Amino acid sequence: MIINPPQRNWKGIAISLLVIVVVCSLITMSVVVLTPAEIPGSSKSRLTVADLYKPDFSLHDPEAKWISDSEVVYRNSDGHVIKFNFVLNETEVILRNSTFVAFKVVKYSLSPDLKYALFAYDVKQVSFKLKEVWELNPPEVHNAVLQHAAWGRQGQQLIYIFENNIYYQSDVKSNSLRVTSSGLEGVIFNGLADWLYEEEILRSHLAHWWSPDGERLAFLTINDTLVPNMALPQFTGSTYPRGLQYPYPMAGQTNPAVKLSVVNLFGATHTQDLLPPEQLKHRDFYVIMVKWISDTHLAVRWLNRPQNASLLTVCDATTGACLQRHEETSETWLSNQRQEPLFSKDRSRFFLTLPVKQGGQGDFHHITMFTKKLRSEQSEVRHLTSGDWEVTKIAAYDENNQVIYFLGTEDSPQQRHLYSVSTLGLFPRRCLTCALKDECTFFDADVSPSTEHAILQCKGQTAQKHSVPVKPLYFHLNSPLNLVFAYFILEDNVPLRSVLETKRTVKTETRIINNDNFAPVLSDCVCPSGSSPGGQAVTDEFRLSWDWVLVGSEQVIVAQLDGRGSGFRGQRYALIQSCGPILLSIYCIFSVCCRYLVKLPYIDRTRIGVFGEDYGGYITLMMLKATEKLIRCAAAQAPVIDWTMYGERGAELNSPGASSPFSSFISITTLGFASKVLPNMKGLPGGTLFLAHGTADANVHFQHSAELIKHLIKIGANYTMQIYPDEGHFLSRRSQLQLTHSLIGYFRGCLLDSSSLLDQLRDDE
Amino acid sequence: MIINPPQRNWKGIAISLLVIVVVCSLITMSVVVLTPAEIPGSSKSRLTVADLYKPDFSLHDPEAKWISDSEVVYRNSDGHVIKFNFVLNETEVILRNSTFVAFKVVKYSLSPDLKYALFAYDVKQVSFKLKEVWELNPPEVHNAVLQHAAWGRQGQQLIYIFENNIYYQSDVKSNSLRVTSSGLEGVIFNGLADWLYEEEILRSHLAHWWSPDGERLAFLTINDTLVPNMALPQFTGSTYPRGLQYPYPMAGQTNPAVKLSVVNLFGATHTQDLLPPEQLKHRDFYVIMVKWISDTHLAVRWLNRPQNASLLTVCDATTGACLQRHEETSETWLSNQRQEPLFSKDRSRFFLTLPVKQGGQGDFHHITMFTKKLRSEQSEVRHLTSGDWEVTKIAAYDENNQVIYFLGTEDSPQQRHLYSVSTLGLFPRRCLTCALKDECTFFDADVSPSTEHAILQCKGQTAQKHSVPVKPLYFHLNSPLNLVFAYFILEDNVPLRSVLETKRTVKTETRIINNDNFAPVLSDCVCPSGSSPGGQAVTDEFRLSWDWVLVGSEQVIVAQLDGRGSGFRGQRYALIQSCGPILLSIYCIFSVCCRYLVKLPYIDRTRIGVFGEDYGGYITLMMLKATEKLIRCAAAQAPVIDWTMYGERGAELNSPGASSPFSSFISITTLGFASKVLPNMKGLPGGTLFLAHGTADANVHFQHSAELIKHLIKIGANYTMQIYPDEGHFLSRRSQLQLTHSLIGYFRGCLLDSSSLLDQLRDDE
Repeated sequence: MIINPPQRNWKGIAISLLVIVVVCSLITMSVVVLTPAEIPGSSKSRLTVADLYKPDFSLHDPEAKWISDSEVVYRNSDGHVIKFNFVLNETEVILRNSTFVAFKVVKYSLSPDLKYALFAYDVKQVSFKLKEVWELNPPEVHNAVLQHAAWGRQGQQLIYIFENNIYYQSDVKSNSLRVTSSGLEGVIFNGLADWLYEEEILRSHLAHWWSPDGERLAFLTINDTLVPNMALPQFTGSTYPRGLQYPYPMAGQTNPAVKLSVVNLFGATHTQDLLPPEQLKHRDFYVIMVKWISDTHLAVRWLNRPQNASLLTVCDATTGACLQRHEETSETWLSNQRQEPLFSKDRSRFFLTLPVKQGGQGDFHHITMFTKKLRSEQSEVRHLTSGDWEVTKIAAYDENNQVIYFLGTEDSPQQRHLYSVSTLGLFPRRCLTCALKDECTFFDADVSPSTEHAILQCKGQTAQKHSVPVKPLYFHLNSPLNLVFAYFILEDNVPLRSVLETKRTVKTETRIINNDNFAPVLSDCVCPSGSSPGGQAVTDEFRLSWDWVLVGSEQVIVAQLDGRGSGFRGQRYALIQSCGPILLSIYCIFSVCCRYLVKLPYIDRTRIGVFGEDYGGYITLMMLKATEKLIRCAAAQAPVIDWTMYGERGAELNSPGASSPFSSFISITTLGFASKVLPNMKGLPGGTLFLAHGTADANVHFQHSAELIKHLIKIGANYTMQIYPDEGHFLSRRSQLQLTHSLIGYFRGCLLDSSSLLDQLRDDE
Repeated sequence: MIINPPQRNWKGIAISLLVIVVVCSLITMSVVVLTPAEIPGSSKSRLTVADLYKPDFSLHDPEAKWISDSEVVYRNSDGHVIKFNFVLNETEVILRNSTFVAFKVVKYSLSPDLKYALFAYDVKQVSFKLKEVWELNPPEVHNAVLQHAAWGRQGQQLIYIFENNIYYQSDVKSNSLRVTSSGLEGVIFNGLADWLYEEEILRSHLAHWWSPDGERLAFLTINDTLVPNMALPQFTGSTYPRGLQYPYPMAGQTNPAVKLSVVNLFGATHTQDLLPPEQLKHRDFYVIMVKWISDTHLAVRWLNRPQNASLLTVCDATTGACLQRHEETSETWLSNQRQEPLFSKDRSRFFLTLPVKQGGQGDFHHITMFTKKLRSEQSEVRHLTSGDWEVTKIAAYDENNQVIYFLGTEDSPQQRHLYSVSTLGLFPRRCLTCALKDECTFFDADVSPSTEHAILQCKGQTAQKHSVPVKPLYFHLNSPLNLVFAYFILEDNVPLRSVLETKRTVKTETRIINNDNFAPVLSDCVCPSGSSPGGQAVTDEFRLSWDWVLVGSEQVIVAQLDGRGSGFRGQRYALIQSCGPILLSIYCIFSVCCRYLVKLPYIDRTRIGVFGEDYGGYITLMMLKATEKLIRCAAAQAPVIDWTMYGERGAELNSPGASSPFSSFISITTLGFASKVLPNMKGLPGGTLFLAHGTADANVHFQHSAELIKHLIKIGANYTMQIYPDEGHFLSRRSQLQLTHSLIGYFRGCLLDSSSLLDQLRDDE
């Protein structure tokens, strides 16, 4: 089976991780910095750029999955795929690492019966069993380049997508069945997302969903016929390179039309369209969430184009009828719309996290339980949790014991722990992982089908507080109601431990600033977000990036900011409408940063740098522009320059209609500054700029940097750049390495240069 | 008359000026350089980057033209257009500078009767007389965007080109007549050149020629239907920017088909095709030169595609028949094929400059006289000049006195003087301008219609030899046979004088190296050309560029090299086939440079930089790659990386066919090095690279730099870059300014950085 690997860069997933980092230098003498002082005993553990790209320094993700209530399949750090029965404490190797090496496997997936594996390797994918290899080809097409291939829910069910049409095979040896025929490359998409749906709506390139029994497949048909095309140039690879075109609706342009259907795959195939709610029938809308809640019913959330009204419906796959269960409206834009509701088996009850007012503290996301009243369309609504903290994920509903498991920030906004809450009485709540804080402070959880066990994955730890290194622990929790943890360590991530030890040695002050000292100062103040709306940068989750190297080798302080607009600190924090004079926001983030930093005796306020990526790049440029002479060095990667040139998501930030319900949110980025960086940009007061961009960036197009460069040339600004030909929003590994070196080189040269800026600033005071 | 200004960047004209510059630093202490020592009395006259772009520091070109044998029309430095009768010593202002200012005129041309002017201003051109303005529109088209408009030869004759078709008006008020109808935008060109003809064949975007009486117009029809298209991306200027496509035959691809026709414009229009010579009828060929030699006859030079055989024919415009008058063949490529022959009035005699063997010195271009034998197709051939110097231009033939006027290098390869030579007896020869050497050493000449007078334009002077500054003098020479010069100074270029004084003050050593000391060393050695084949960098012609600023402010030495392959020093010098082991060439140019420079007591051989543009960029990269650790700083602007990605002219340098007659010429650039920079490029040994390129470069496509960047990322090289979005091969003024600053900043930082390279080199020895 020859399958094209999904040529996706997983942009959607990463887009919420955009981070703005403020880099401030110590007043360490530049002599000291030019020949950096060795920290006793730490020189060997100092991070280098090369370290960042070593497998030793990356977190191993075992991709553990439940296959029964006592069995987990995961990939261990040696590369073997293991089936682990924790009741019997038995392990079985399902796939050896040598197989992965032989095929140079990039991704793998196992068939539900564990008899077959689907491999993505290099440019091809094959399905094989004991050296038997089948080709997966559409009828009458040889050596087809497939867009997607995956197992279904039963046995060896397979679907694959080719030329935007879905094909189905009941097992690996059966003939394939064509499910759709309307597909047209780059125009009409069946079961896959177009750019808009991948980037902004579903955050996945997949737009199909299996029913639990594998009998039905729900899928979107996205029609981009009327959507304007954006061109991506191509420079390399052939004598006459050709560019690419793809539908890209910028703010105010025609959106794709979307249809949700369910195809019955057993017996005579039959496709049933699911009807959008009456209110949306003749308007632009999005299908932002689809989830099977039984073998015949789906929960579907429909969102209007302005994204200020959504309808949660339950649809019957046999009739196509969708009944409304919940409606949300907002004066601003609605957040968290991809959230999947958790339904009881009889569909009479479901759970969502929704913003709930917490006295004077504003709204925080808490678990809301909707229970259908007897003989009524109405629901009884109860809030199971409360307080000035947030529920980040509802993990499971144990119907027998009437318990909800969830992840939340009750102990700290930077941490994630697993909690249980009863749906009865006064909703008693318990933290199930807080006792493990010495080992881990940032958990993710995957509860077993019977809700009796959970895989816990540790994603990070507040390093400076504890002497025990972070380990990615894989627990199963036995009978959570008893709060007794009997756990097996599936994997102990030794390399990660050494990285964190390195971090702790060279970065003590940074960690202090990051978490304990700096962030609280910010949270008292009205400041724009450094991360994208709803994102969060300052957590205990382990992330290793170029700035760690800068810090480690240059003794520069790196401060990460989560200002207003970021998530998990309540709605007041997330939205800006109560912020007061917006004009001050940009100055504010900076002045708060500086006000705090300047208090530190070892900070040189004349040597402050800033780095940001896409949205953060926009903020970076805004800061450079708005703060007279205060930022010496600014680096922007793939910055947004003009929101009208950005996608529909950009429209959220700056809808062309002045009466847009997002106008108050626009304030974050634009009010008082205009939606474009350029018009007010007279120069780079006192600072220099480093710019990096891939020319084939399909998310933030190179046209943004191109317009910026033209403007910088016009105003005679001092800037440097790195361009990555034919690279997208997420750079290739080699280019990332190059960029890392360039960024560190830039900040090193810029921050540690002993120019006369200090004197200038003193003269100005 | 609304006319689109020719959207041409005059690439063709400038392409032969590509220059490679080797930059070597003094061993001036870096402390001294960081705070540059003032040269006594010179600080005020030191050149800055801004100076380069001031009109004060540019040479005023009066564009003087003969309108009768006693009258010249020119534009003076105040901007007035003047008619000057030097017999009566009368001047008349034809157009005031205020008119130019009012219309923001970019270009102008006067109708033959001097009653009308055609102005190109901003995006529009109008023809006007005393505030009367006419629109020039094709029939039934309003506000057409014209590609070209110009006066004819008589009265108010006008032609204009629109959608690749030629239109004619007999006077400004008459209706326009459509001359051609086959034109198809971007595919079939009438009277205009496609990319290939503009860049590589005609070196002009115009492909039509008026007969002297204005009755006939010869024009090319260039059919690019089968030529592959090259795409130029566009990034800026609109929400959904679109790229451009244009026919661009790379090496070995299909060439455009070309047809030469003559249309009779008086009376009933009639178009007569001129037939190519029998030998070329079924082959690819170029029409490389067209010149009317009477009202009914044209001289046409036809060139085969390999450019190793050309036929000079005389064509009868009334019958379309072309008779061969001269044939040239070569084992290598033929140079100088655009040269126009000078015919006697009865067409029985013509003159060309052709390579003539000068004993052991090899071939030099000299005037050859072809006289048709009576009752024979054969010609008698006589060489009027001889010696180890070259005739650069035949200026005129005075049939009454049997004298040829020409420009040549007899006095020095760097100089150009006007000479006369008799076509009788022993061909006595005289230099007419050598007596003016104190005032000027680089002349151009435009002889009057009756060959009694000449406008001489001074283009430069060997500055360090003389105390008198260069002036662009406009002489008319009276009765040249008597060698009596009575001249009027039309214009005394005061700003130029001050520039040259500045140059002399700060650059004495450089000038010495440039001309007297350095060049002779090179000319003894077999070295590749720094300028493009046939070009010449080291002359007395005045040129001011960014490296003057580097020299002026940093006390760096700049050396310009004309190695083997450059022009005006004889054919042995121009062609490489006698060069010996080619593998050494790249090392050679460098080692000769260094061997000479190292002898200078103030040269630091560890701090040597190199700069080159397109072909020179290729050489720069080759030098960087081939010379281990010797070049510290290299800058390449729009470099060619791979000759197979270059145009037909590139094919000259590296034809895909191994049996190409150019294989010996290929040696210059490729033999022993491969045609691509990349395959052998393992790194930038000891050096850094600065790269600059416009993304819409239609000549050296951005794909070259893109491939280079990808390679540099791959090998982890140390480089910086400046990209100019949507800019072509010749950058906008603003981008030039930015690049100038960047280049100077780069070389300043790189050459004057006190790193440990010196120690490294010493260790290596």
